[in-house]
Amino acid sequence: MHSDVQDEQAMACCNKDLCKKESTCLEKCVYVSNPYLTTMKDDILYHFDLGTRTHDLPGMFGDVKFVCVGGSPWRMKSFAQYMNVVLGLGCATADIPDICAHTDRYSMYKVGPVLAISHGMGIPSISIMLHELIKLLCHAKCSDVVAFRIGTSGGIGVQPGTVVVTRVSVDPCFNPCLKQNVMGMTMSYPTALNECLAQEMLKCSKELNKFDTILGTTLCTSDFYEGQARLDGAFCHYTAEDKMNYLRCAYEAGVRNIEMESAAFAAMCNRSGLPGAVLCVTLLDRLQGDQICSSHEVLTEYQERPQMLVGRYIKKKFCNK
Amino acid sequence: MHSDVQDEQAMACCNKDLCKKESTCLEKCVYVSNPYLTTMKDDILYHFDLGTRTHDLPGMFGDVKFVCVGGSPWRMKSFAQYMNVVLGLGCATADIPDICAHTDRYSMYKVGPVLAISHGMGIPSISIMLHELIKLLCHAKCSDVVAFRIGTSGGIGVQPGTVVVTRVSVDPCFNPCLKQNVMGMTMSYPTALNECLAQEMLKCSKELNKFDTILGTTLCTSDFYEGQARLDGAFCHYTAEDKMNYLRCAYEAGVRNIEMESAAFAAMCNRSGLPGAVLCVTLLDRLQGDQICSSHEVLTEYQERPQMLVGRYIKKKFCNK
Repeated sequence: MHSDVQDEQAMACCNKDLCKKESTCLEKCVYVSNPYLTTMKDDILYHFDLGTRTHDLPGMFGDVKFVCVGGSPWRMKSFAQYMNVVLGLGCATADIPDICAHTDRYSMYKVGPVLAISHGMGIPSISIMLHELIKLLCHAKCSDVVAFRIGTSGGIGVQPGTVVVTRVSVDPCFNPCLKQNVMGMTMSYPTALNECLAQEMLKCSKELNKFDTILGTTLCTSDFYEGQARLDGAFCHYTAEDKMNYLRCAYEAGVRNIEMESAAFAAMCNRSGLPGAVLCVTLLDRLQGDQICSSHEVLTEYQERPQMLVGRYIKKKFCNK
Repeated sequence: MHSDVQDEQAMACCNKDLCKKESTCLEKCVYVSNPYLTTMKDDILYHFDLGTRTHDLPGMFGDVKFVCVGGSPWRMKSFAQYMNVVLGLGCATADIPDICAHTDRYSMYKVGPVLAISHGMGIPSISIMLHELIKLLCHAKCSDVVAFRIGTSGGIGVQPGTVVVTRVSVDPCFNPCLKQNVMGMTMSYPTALNECLAQEMLKCSKELNKFDTILGTTLCTSDFYEGQARLDGAFCHYTAEDKMNYLRCAYEAGVRNIEMESAAFAAMCNRSGLPGAVLCVTLLDRLQGDQICSSHEVLTEYQERPQMLVGRYIKKKFCNK
């Protein structure tokens, strides 16, 4: 093992201050931290179907300043169309091409300085995407990039439709770290998100004044059913009382919502030095039930809420350049 | 906690013999093991956009006998079209509708007794799908179902293009189990696959005589880059020597390929009593490199190999009824 882990931990701290950003890594290559990358003749970003030999990555992505990721390909396309309108670059029905159209692993859309990418469900799926995204930003010589994850979640003790901006992502034992097994050894990475950026998101919500947005701890799990103490999975070996006790403990630990990707997003933002925010709308209150029963129309409207906050932030930054 | 875990472990054993299958669970409801399901008025399979109140699940799925799952939506559509031809039910270019078209989480295609479903990448993603699939089979009153996962993988010490039929899936420490955190407690489930079915797959390959198929241990990881000891991720804090040592240890432990879903598939087959097989083609030999450099044409041909084995098996069973 190299000793670069210490550099990463130092970076994780300075990443808490948006204004105090510094190069983490290799000469001329911010964000990545891998000495082997410079020895490679070309780099194939397999799950994006992009590569340094086959694509002009600086030409295609060099102007990217905002990356927004979310689970669903449709939602990311809809976000790109929304940003087209917000930034005055085109119309809401524009057919923005999927840059990753030759693969169905992820979808990717670019609108001006905004890159929108889907990441599927769960830590492994978002983790593959973030490795390739961070390498893409490096190959494209991007700088001063800010990253967002917009998504859906189950709320705990909050009204459905509330947007939770994550202060810190915690594991099922409420520890603020991501544990990852590398060659049989357990690595642990901190999962606090950028505080300045989270506050900016709250400010955008106050200005919009259309729905509730709160700061909170987010519980990140590796399963939607048993991993989130649901009673409606194919298997259930605990009782309704066990479930309620666990959810109440989570609430007392500051948890306001549960989803499945924030820990990887936070850990990799910290490791790469990308300032990042996680904004998830709650689709239900888990203290009231397990099934998501709202109509498609209500759920669609809820899912637009994190997009509106990120859109407002990007518009402010883009127009103030 | 209920004590049904013991029942599941007994089931995991009897599941090793295809011919000795018995009901695991609730009265009239094989496969699932959740006393709360019978108390629910209706059940929304959220990620499939299907439900017991909104859909006639027995009418739509009651005749399903073979379920085949794989990461990529395109590959599962192509498999459904292939099975259309193999079973003499239609042509290869038939536009088979996506049953989950109203959601972009998963894709689902049905061709006669065959159900093909995509599961995305990683254990959490396949785990959500399998919970809802197992409930679907229960609601549809299906019986005598056999399940397959077809996929791609990195090989260890085998020629690219070889199909590995998994004997047992192991974690990064080479333990034959899936560890899952439920409400802060670690549960462990065995991950051996059905031996009879694996042997049947080998037999199909010998009859076809078109490519190499071997039985082996499959390493299941939660990351594609650091989790698989790659040197080409955004981060790398180990050396090329560390990597080679780990891969050689894996080979010595019987590992012949690495992928990201087999442990969840095996564990949930064992828990539900579904006989299951995992067939993954190797796209590269990890002892030779990390990047997947083969052409699209070669990779496409490789990905058809597990489909051909499963297709041959299903044809034999379907035509011998």
